[in-house]
Amino acid sequence: MTRPLCVGIAGLGTVGAGVLRLLRENAEIVTARAGRPVAVVAVSARDRSKDRGVSLAGLRWYDDPVALAADPGLDCVVELIGGSEGPSRHLAEATLQAGKPLVTANKALLAVHGAALAAAAEAAHVTLGYEAAVAGGIPIIKALREGLAGNRIHRVSGILNGTCNYILTQMAERGREFADVLAEAQRLGYAEADPSFDVDGIDAAHKLAILAALAFGRPVDFAAVHVEGIRRVSALDVAFARELGYRIKLLGIATARPAGVEARVHPCMVPAAAPLARVDGVFNAVVAEGDFAGQIMLQGRGAGAGPTASAVVADLMDLARGQAIAVWGAATAALSTLPTLSMSAHQGCYYLRLMVVDRPGVIADVTAALRDAGVSLESMLQRGRAPGEAVPVVLVTHETAEAAMAAALARIAALDTVLEPPALIRIEPA
Amino acid sequence: MTRPLCVGIAGLGTVGAGVLRLLRENAEIVTARAGRPVAVVAVSARDRSKDRGVSLAGLRWYDDPVALAADPGLDCVVELIGGSEGPSRHLAEATLQAGKPLVTANKALLAVHGAALAAAAEAAHVTLGYEAAVAGGIPIIKALREGLAGNRIHRVSGILNGTCNYILTQMAERGREFADVLAEAQRLGYAEADPSFDVDGIDAAHKLAILAALAFGRPVDFAAVHVEGIRRVSALDVAFARELGYRIKLLGIATARPAGVEARVHPCMVPAAAPLARVDGVFNAVVAEGDFAGQIMLQGRGAGAGPTASAVVADLMDLARGQAIAVWGAATAALSTLPTLSMSAHQGCYYLRLMVVDRPGVIADVTAALRDAGVSLESMLQRGRAPGEAVPVVLVTHETAEAAMAAALARIAALDTVLEPPALIRIEPA
Repeated sequence: MTRPLCVGIAGLGTVGAGVLRLLRENAEIVTARAGRPVAVVAVSARDRSKDRGVSLAGLRWYDDPVALAADPGLDCVVELIGGSEGPSRHLAEATLQAGKPLVTANKALLAVHGAALAAAAEAAHVTLGYEAAVAGGIPIIKALREGLAGNRIHRVSGILNGTCNYILTQMAERGREFADVLAEAQRLGYAEADPSFDVDGIDAAHKLAILAALAFGRPVDFAAVHVEGIRRVSALDVAFARELGYRIKLLGIATARPAGVEARVHPCMVPAAAPLARVDGVFNAVVAEGDFAGQIMLQGRGAGAGPTASAVVADLMDLARGQAIAVWGAATAALSTLPTLSMSAHQGCYYLRLMVVDRPGVIADVTAALRDAGVSLESMLQRGRAPGEAVPVVLVTHETAEAAMAAALARIAALDTVLEPPALIRIEPA
Repeated sequence: MTRPLCVGIAGLGTVGAGVLRLLRENAEIVTARAGRPVAVVAVSARDRSKDRGVSLAGLRWYDDPVALAADPGLDCVVELIGGSEGPSRHLAEATLQAGKPLVTANKALLAVHGAALAAAAEAAHVTLGYEAAVAGGIPIIKALREGLAGNRIHRVSGILNGTCNYILTQMAERGREFADVLAEAQRLGYAEADPSFDVDGIDAAHKLAILAALAFGRPVDFAAVHVEGIRRVSALDVAFARELGYRIKLLGIATARPAGVEARVHPCMVPAAAPLARVDGVFNAVVAEGDFAGQIMLQGRGAGAGPTASAVVADLMDLARGQAIAVWGAATAALSTLPTLSMSAHQGCYYLRLMVVDRPGVIADVTAALRDAGVSLESMLQRGRAPGEAVPVVLVTHETAEAAMAAALARIAALDTVLEPPALIRIEPA
């Protein structure tokens, strides 16, 4: 038997305990497939006495994760602390500075500091594994970085947040409002007490920033991702979407264009027959479009102890086998310098739903605003009549510029016959 | 710039030409991501003068693929000749004997001779890449062999033949009969003039044998796969499937059981909401179930020059980076010796459709045969009345043993009130 890969883990929440459990329960197959044992020998967490359902006997304990990184008996460090600043960042930097490979499930850290960490890993000639940071148990990083490596990737998109997808699925299946479903999801433990990280799209944007960096071979650029969450999606719009042959999904979409990269997270209307429209509940899915491979979709569980542990261990097994690959798929010097494009440069079709007073001339005012901005309409839907009262009007545009749509929208929102802030949802081919 | 990986390709059909084209068009990104150029320097095919749409200028030419394998200037050989015997096999053996890594898209070769070839690769300390042999552009080999490497895989299943899926999708969408859709698919070039390799399930069985070997870490055992094709699927059964909430798909399914591995390819009724039921047309999809990752599905194009070239090049880029991994995920000595189970040991639910004479007592005879074999019914469907004439009767069973079902079926088929061979389709959870 060859020498084991000696691993230190910082952070013993459900994922950390899951990694310990996997490496013990599946020790035999991990050893056979990695060609050597993968053994956790040291850990760091806040509370040594907490019952995590796994024994820590025989493991070296560190209160300070940075001290863990300095342990000379470790071949690599797994960072499962979370958060883009503080202990997780210090540990990551200390690990790479110590010349040790780093494996992390931390999307926030990578999205915010990924460019610097990748440079540090490259300088230290060690790898930085982050399969667990995007879409949990789905091996999307490996698929993009190795499986589709021969392809020029045009576009990568996906359902990257299980909480949002669960909420939107519940809204669609049961005709309920966002706030109502969120409260239930919180009771069931599917959503955090403070849900903003998920429902405001930040978590999905972290993951999209990572996917875009990898797909297009450029330093990660989280700050440039356009982010909108799902708080403003209403049951009415979910119902209209269905009527129009769409489903509403929170997608992260990164597209390579000649002038740069478009990266955005927002609610989308997706054709009901599109593969992503059919991914429901807490599942995640990522679609990558390569110039030779065509469209590939991977779906599975995007979170949870088991799936995330599976991804962490895949990175550890690559390390055990000596497989090394550049963080963003290519060396820093070979990365692209394409800028991220502003959202105002986006072109697409739009769904616009207004609550208007049902009286003559209203539609004329609305359509005049669209016409003056150069927005052309594909269809209009007005249902029911309630003279003098509020009725919904739905407009679907042909492809138009985001900036034109914004100009029209500002004028429409100011009309005194338009009673609520207009609902705008972008329509995506998939 | 580091020394290129020097590649020889044997077989210049659409896939071989696709590999040449990809490596030229995407040379810059391949070099950046592989860390060195990947260059085809020698080729072998039957006809040197044929126009393949790609220039062969500057490439060494071999009429004999075995001579290609001996070219001392090659770092590896790509086998794209096809077929389990003859030149492809000789080339594969010669390549490994010459101590060179082999990359192949040849599922027949691997399914039939994969155990011996894997042993030869291991003895020569070289790799055998076969990403292109299963599901074309979908990186399922990498996902199973590396991405899910920490998992014990319970089950792997999939839509592995695009021609069959296209035919079944057309039958479902247009209510047409198999022979009719096959003839059209042949005219359109989606099916071969001799379609038996596809429609009789052999191609899917080759791929399933490879997936089962990899998923469960055991030598490939094609001969033990139970194979049925789609010729006997009728428009009537497709319609009944829909009425019962199912879709008919040709699936390859490999399941790990305590006593051994069950590996089978046959038409299945899959719940309409299951992910695989929603994969239509020429697309392929594979579902893998790991003990930690849960259920993962990958879908994409399972054939064609571009997708297959993408997979071949992924293997070449792994080679260029020096990534080496055991053929079936673990060294031969660590492979499992679990036997393949006989189909008669299968347990499942069954759809049975009979054409019976519409007269009293017929159902009693049929249900008595089922009862005597110990088969219990979940539901029965009889539609329309035509006294004295043939009417369809559909029976759906609870979980039962294949052997019991076969016994009941033999007796039912022999009833003189049963007018055609009974149609039996197994029902799968997905």
